[in-house]
Amino acid sequence: MFTLEANDPHSNARAGRITTDHGEICTPIFMPVGTQGTVKAIEQRELLEMGAHIILGNTYHLYLRPSEEVLSRMGGLHSFMNWTKPILTDSGGFQVFSLKELMKLSEDGAAFSSHIDGSKHFFSPERVMEIQRCIGSDIMMLLDECTSFPATHDEAKRSMERSMRWAKRCKTAVENSDARYGARQFAFGIGQGSVFKDLRADSIAALTDIGFDGYAIGGLAVGEQAEIMYDIVEHSTGLLPKAQARYLMGVGTPQNILECIERGVDMFDCVMPTRNARNAQLFTTKGRINLRNAKHRFDETPIDTGLENYASNNFSRAYLRHLFMADEILALQLASQHNIAFYLWLTRTAREHIFAGTFTTWKREFLAEFTAGTAQ
Amino acid sequence: MFTLEANDPHSNARAGRITTDHGEICTPIFMPVGTQGTVKAIEQRELLEMGAHIILGNTYHLYLRPSEEVLSRMGGLHSFMNWTKPILTDSGGFQVFSLKELMKLSEDGAAFSSHIDGSKHFFSPERVMEIQRCIGSDIMMLLDECTSFPATHDEAKRSMERSMRWAKRCKTAVENSDARYGARQFAFGIGQGSVFKDLRADSIAALTDIGFDGYAIGGLAVGEQAEIMYDIVEHSTGLLPKAQARYLMGVGTPQNILECIERGVDMFDCVMPTRNARNAQLFTTKGRINLRNAKHRFDETPIDTGLENYASNNFSRAYLRHLFMADEILALQLASQHNIAFYLWLTRTAREHIFAGTFTTWKREFLAEFTAGTAQ
Repeated sequence: MFTLEANDPHSNARAGRITTDHGEICTPIFMPVGTQGTVKAIEQRELLEMGAHIILGNTYHLYLRPSEEVLSRMGGLHSFMNWTKPILTDSGGFQVFSLKELMKLSEDGAAFSSHIDGSKHFFSPERVMEIQRCIGSDIMMLLDECTSFPATHDEAKRSMERSMRWAKRCKTAVENSDARYGARQFAFGIGQGSVFKDLRADSIAALTDIGFDGYAIGGLAVGEQAEIMYDIVEHSTGLLPKAQARYLMGVGTPQNILECIERGVDMFDCVMPTRNARNAQLFTTKGRINLRNAKHRFDETPIDTGLENYASNNFSRAYLRHLFMADEILALQLASQHNIAFYLWLTRTAREHIFAGTFTTWKREFLAEFTAGTAQ
Repeated sequence: MFTLEANDPHSNARAGRITTDHGEICTPIFMPVGTQGTVKAIEQRELLEMGAHIILGNTYHLYLRPSEEVLSRMGGLHSFMNWTKPILTDSGGFQVFSLKELMKLSEDGAAFSSHIDGSKHFFSPERVMEIQRCIGSDIMMLLDECTSFPATHDEAKRSMERSMRWAKRCKTAVENSDARYGARQFAFGIGQGSVFKDLRADSIAALTDIGFDGYAIGGLAVGEQAEIMYDIVEHSTGLLPKAQARYLMGVGTPQNILECIERGVDMFDCVMPTRNARNAQLFTTKGRINLRNAKHRFDETPIDTGLENYASNNFSRAYLRHLFMADEILALQLASQHNIAFYLWLTRTAREHIFAGTFTTWKREFLAEFTAGTAQ
């Protein structure tokens, strides 16, 4: 499913192409998060317009609402939400483990109570793959145990080893089930091991031994320092097969993404662009801005002239600030559109520079300007 | 500014054209309400796409936020919100009078406290026209006293007479001030008189004596029965000059609008399509539906195949229901888009049938189907 197209001559950055039955994904790629079957405040046609190649859904959320029954009868998530391009689904493990006292973990899986109505449910590795079959995602993520942070070496080892046993069960479940709705459904393994390189190596060895369509680096961006994250990412990509896609889950800031592209990551997702947008925090090609700041009251500058995008170019910062101050829904729409357009621009531009052999220079210059603009 | 283009042979319905420096408005027309400089949850390009000819702004809201200072420095509301077509502004009187204990009325005007921060303000007829100059609306509405309902004949007479004295002051204020931002700004008088025909006649006589660019029928849809409203509308349009536009303020349901088009009204505005949309209540060409209703859980039907519109045709009712149940912003966007598209379709189709001489037949058949569909 993955074709490596170019290697940056000055770093581990690489460009590639993931082929699915719902279309191709050019990497490096940012994947907008559409937890409940919608990227918050953005229309599907706007995602296409901004150049999104793939979006995320969340198994936990979609399982509870609208439910497997609805998704199955509506022909899967693509058909349900009218999105014809690829979809990757998180296993929902992260959400289930976040329920804490509403969740009880065993070797078999996780029993939990719904955050919506308190109803009782059980996610095993097999069940989670079955739900993702029903969703019809192009890329299904395994159920793994989310290692808490910080964790001792012992804790991280036990947790990782359980995740690897679950990975094996997920693989078997995938092999013993059929893709739904006429399109292939790939499965990605998830490396764990917290910040311990030996455990990360063991985890990747176990996963590649089982064999998956692609590999994610999980359990990062959970509170550790950025430099530690970069170090673990570099260590992991050095061990992962070059011929398959690498996905760093839940990362991150523009800087995080560029640093990890440089270290060989192909795929990213993060709620930051849409969540921050709803808090009036915009990412622009010249740095971050907070539209609630009074200095934008009379600011006739468009949101970001560096982007070819409806929201970015057609409205002043003063207008968007007014919409936020007046609690208008259009504020959320325009800000979310802009931030997603920015993240898509970021990975698309990184890709162009990888092909041109200018990635590291561009990255350094871009981040210098971005940081300087943010500090103002 | 108004050209009468066609009279329905079977009723008082009429088609016309209002010419402003920001473009033409084909009547009958529904005007989406954009109180705070945005039609809630709808992008400006989407309003154009759906065929909106004119939108409303609200003087009270825009005066408090973003303020005259911001609007003036940004070149007026058109420029501020990037809307190049016509804008009509309500005087804000209705909002000020709704403040009740926060408002003190005198012959000179209304003193009130802001609903946002409690700050003290004063709206006189002259001041309200000055603010609308600053907004740069193509059609400015006079400040009038909103007669409470029900009112005795005496109360309604005193209130109407004050409004007529204010109308004269507004006219003088308009004559003694210049249009802003290089485009003409028309002023509409507002007939009052509650449900009393003699007072309505006196009010219209007073307004036409002063002379305005167009005339509104105010003080209706405030709690009176629909039949009484229709009767007062018919009485009013019978007295208003045929050569000028007639605007029925704050009305209403699809049926209200068609009944009043039949009685000679040209322009309508109402928050109903956007407000109801946000409560999951949709107007379709086949009747009203409530998407929270469980019967739509597996409903693969598009919102409304009778409309050529992105939101109406590209998503199932089951999907939109899911978005509402999951509290997703996209629910508000798609539902608002659809309802506004429906209201614009309604007045556009009425206009076509007026030209074709088939308005009354179409109206009867449409309402029969719409009502039957709603009753299901």
